[in-house]
Amino acid sequence: MKATVLVRPKPGILDPQGEAVESSLRHLGFAVSGARVGRLVELDVDAPDADRARAELERMCEQLLTNPLIESYEISLAEVGG
Amino acid sequence: MKATVLVRPKPGILDPQGEAVESSLRHLGFAVSGARVGRLVELDVDAPDADRARAELERMCEQLLTNPLIESYEISLAEVGG
Repeated sequence: MKATVLVRPKPGILDPQGEAVESSLRHLGFAVSGARVGRLVELDVDAPDADRARAELERMCEQLLTNPLIESYEISLAEVGG
Repeated sequence: MKATVLVRPKPGILDPQGEAVESSLRHLGFAVSGARVGRLVELDVDAPDADRARAELERMCEQLLTNPLIESYEISLAEVGG
């Protein structure tokens, strides 16, 4: 089952990469603000159904894909066939 | 106007970060395959309408946010009010 995980720095947490992106974009002349940079992880999960896949993905996020202290995550599953 | 840009390594392009994630997840006992890691950029664009915002975002992607040779990007705009 194909899954997408979006990982974002939590609100209030410093995001130096976002600040660098915003500053660089402004130097290039773009009118932007509030830039935040996170990660996108796409993978195939071998699970019998969507509920099981989602539970596995939550465990992956807690154990490896994110730092739960400073990052939040959003899981989406591609519903393909049954 | 709030915008989200998803940046992915193009198909066929080596993704060492995705390989590391996949290998680590398997070592933890997860049944996963095909892991790919990209970036998520969220920002506010000062533009009079969605078309103008999208055009600006495409220029940002070409100039700074992505490496068009090896990465593809997907732009989404949050439609808020008018």
